[in-house]
Amino acid sequence: MHAVDLIRKKRDGEELTRQEIQFLAHGAATETIPEEQLAAWLMAAFLRGLSLTEVDALTTAMKLSGEVFDPSSLGRFAVDKHSTGGVGDKTSFLIAPIAAAAGLVVPMISGRALGHTGGTLDKLESIPGYRTQLSLKEMEQVLSKVGASIVGQTKNLVPADRVLYALRDRTSTVESPYLICASIMSKKLAAGLNGLVLDVKTGSGAFLRRKKDALFLAALMVETGERAGTSTAALLTNMNQPLGRMAGNWIEVQESLDLLTGKRHPLNEDLRELSLLLAGWMIYLGGASDTAETGRDRAEEILDSGRALEILTEMVKLHGGNTSIFEEPEKFHSPAFRKDFLADRSGYLAQVDCTQVGWAVQRLGAGRERAGEPVSAHAGLEMHVKLGHKIVAGEPLCTLFSDNDSRFLESETLLRQALLIADEPTPAEPLIQEIITAENKKEYLESAHRP
Amino acid sequence: MHAVDLIRKKRDGEELTRQEIQFLAHGAATETIPEEQLAAWLMAAFLRGLSLTEVDALTTAMKLSGEVFDPSSLGRFAVDKHSTGGVGDKTSFLIAPIAAAAGLVVPMISGRALGHTGGTLDKLESIPGYRTQLSLKEMEQVLSKVGASIVGQTKNLVPADRVLYALRDRTSTVESPYLICASIMSKKLAAGLNGLVLDVKTGSGAFLRRKKDALFLAALMVETGERAGTSTAALLTNMNQPLGRMAGNWIEVQESLDLLTGKRHPLNEDLRELSLLLAGWMIYLGGASDTAETGRDRAEEILDSGRALEILTEMVKLHGGNTSIFEEPEKFHSPAFRKDFLADRSGYLAQVDCTQVGWAVQRLGAGRERAGEPVSAHAGLEMHVKLGHKIVAGEPLCTLFSDNDSRFLESETLLRQALLIADEPTPAEPLIQEIITAENKKEYLESAHRP
Repeated sequence: MHAVDLIRKKRDGEELTRQEIQFLAHGAATETIPEEQLAAWLMAAFLRGLSLTEVDALTTAMKLSGEVFDPSSLGRFAVDKHSTGGVGDKTSFLIAPIAAAAGLVVPMISGRALGHTGGTLDKLESIPGYRTQLSLKEMEQVLSKVGASIVGQTKNLVPADRVLYALRDRTSTVESPYLICASIMSKKLAAGLNGLVLDVKTGSGAFLRRKKDALFLAALMVETGERAGTSTAALLTNMNQPLGRMAGNWIEVQESLDLLTGKRHPLNEDLRELSLLLAGWMIYLGGASDTAETGRDRAEEILDSGRALEILTEMVKLHGGNTSIFEEPEKFHSPAFRKDFLADRSGYLAQVDCTQVGWAVQRLGAGRERAGEPVSAHAGLEMHVKLGHKIVAGEPLCTLFSDNDSRFLESETLLRQALLIADEPTPAEPLIQEIITAENKKEYLESAHRP
Repeated sequence: MHAVDLIRKKRDGEELTRQEIQFLAHGAATETIPEEQLAAWLMAAFLRGLSLTEVDALTTAMKLSGEVFDPSSLGRFAVDKHSTGGVGDKTSFLIAPIAAAAGLVVPMISGRALGHTGGTLDKLESIPGYRTQLSLKEMEQVLSKVGASIVGQTKNLVPADRVLYALRDRTSTVESPYLICASIMSKKLAAGLNGLVLDVKTGSGAFLRRKKDALFLAALMVETGERAGTSTAALLTNMNQPLGRMAGNWIEVQESLDLLTGKRHPLNEDLRELSLLLAGWMIYLGGASDTAETGRDRAEEILDSGRALEILTEMVKLHGGNTSIFEEPEKFHSPAFRKDFLADRSGYLAQVDCTQVGWAVQRLGAGRERAGEPVSAHAGLEMHVKLGHKIVAGEPLCTLFSDNDSRFLESETLLRQALLIADEPTPAEPLIQEIITAENKKEYLESAHRP
């Protein structure tokens, strides 16, 4: 088999066989196919698209390019949630312990902040001592004790994706639904999941802003998960403003702890509700409830009982984290500078360019522009208003936190463009826009535009 | 300017600016843009196509990526011919001295055998001592003395093409008319031509077998030449059987010498006529005749006068070649083995898979499968029949020459498949199928299918 022939085949719009896809994924992982050939194939795949069988074959081949996690010895069904990335999205800290409390295990392999989006690992590392780099063996031990473990990708997990993702970044082949699906699903399926719920963001803060693109990706991932034997569902959710009140690192953990300890706030009811819905789907897909709705009710019981907080606290300890930060956060995190961002007119918060808000958070020091850059644990932004709220000129729309006050100016400029105050409120959009399951995925796949 | 943005632009079907194209060509030549990015751009260009302005910009940028030849000090118009490659095509040996005799200079930068096609340089190197690797300065000296010089590409000529061509070979992006045009025309225009005639082959021995593909490429090259200020025309010519009688290296030079010395043969009247037509166009485009027709008549006068033979002989000497081979070839080239290939039935030669014939010649040792392989000067094949000829079972269809008799078997197998004898002759096709000029190129460009 020669890479040049497989490139030609995809170039001419033909379907590659499973063996051919495997040859390419193996060649990527072992670096035996040169990058210029992988790049040409990626561009051909971007422009010609992949068939469902090719996406399935690529996902499986990438998954099997490295080590995989086998949760079967734990004696409980494994479930997880994956989000396509947003601003202020800290549902993982609620969901993982809730699903664990429902009798499931959650081997959650998470990512880092990049561009305008935050990263679960960076948020967790704001807890002193928390180790995100566990081996699969260590993760298994945490799971056996507490049912949930949130870790980073190990070096040997899905090495084909490491090579292909870096290459896509350099060759403008990132935004292909087929390649995004294979990248996400290969990593998720490598954790040996029985059930997976996908939180596919749409709207101004999402990577895929157009609803039809997000829907197609969601359906493609559900199809691919189901083909691999993992019960999969996707929620298409609104990312037209930050989720909850906080966007940053430690402040997002803190907001999650508030909800885990029963402290509710009108500005983060969206976060609480989305977390319960996603946890409900995890409980249902993991076989611990009869429907997603009864799963949500079970999730709420667990949250209210304080059991989820106990599990998260225990998980943090098992990862080496110092949980005294939960009681005395000011001893650990006290950003050197804080500044209110004030409304320059009265009216209603009518529109939020949530990607710009995410970049404002990045500029404060909480995110990174390029992989590998350090992030600040303290930096971030607290929203004081939500879409549709009435605003009086001069009142604070949000409060900015940073270790460096020279960073405020750029963030304020971004926020001034991002937060639109108008005379009339715009109608509220539902938090959950669509639910894509094994039953209805076909219609979304068929109605999709293909490149 | 970032390569990743230019890749994205072409990926999305947008037109790149002249500056952007220049950035890519310069990056290729200087190896400052990594190959995986060039590969992704090549595939995007392959699948999205290039605009006429982009092809022009790419051709010019590639041409200017290295040294260029300036014939102006020679005081005569410079012309050349380029063929897209065929089997038994030795027109260069007639054309170059004819055009020189007509008062023009012919700085002919030629290529080597590859795959099923022969190469002018390999044929010339069958003349003992002939140096194909002259510097541009040395070529200028030969041109000032004799008006014609056939040389190989210098290391510093169009370096962008060297990088991009090797990359296209590895990434299945060879067969794009846009990229083929830029590759050919950048090299030809780097010779500072006033006139250029293109021999675009079509039919079973051509790279572009489909007539519409060949027509589009021809029109694209005429358009690009004219935009660069070089009078350009293209002849779409039949490559459904080897041109003339011989296919190999030395035997092709010898066949050319026969015609230059006035020895005509019914089996190479096609070679003679094509050479005169192409030379006629060179004379016309170089301003030495009023029409291509009167140019052809002038070419025939020159050929019949023996003047072209004198110039070729002088050119070979100036290149260090030993011209005593012209008088006593048997002293230099005597293939160790020869074998007749016999007809296995009676009938008419109805069809020739000329690409397979080319591979048969390659297998005999005259060609190369991969760049860099050595070739035999003696090996090759002499055809005894042409399409439409009546054949009696047992008579020789061709004679094979090789230095190694173990090579015959594979060639014979290929020839058995390639030469079809049928009960009825098929109607003869014209040698010249179309002529594309500055006047009519537009219709061919518009009627073309684009990818």
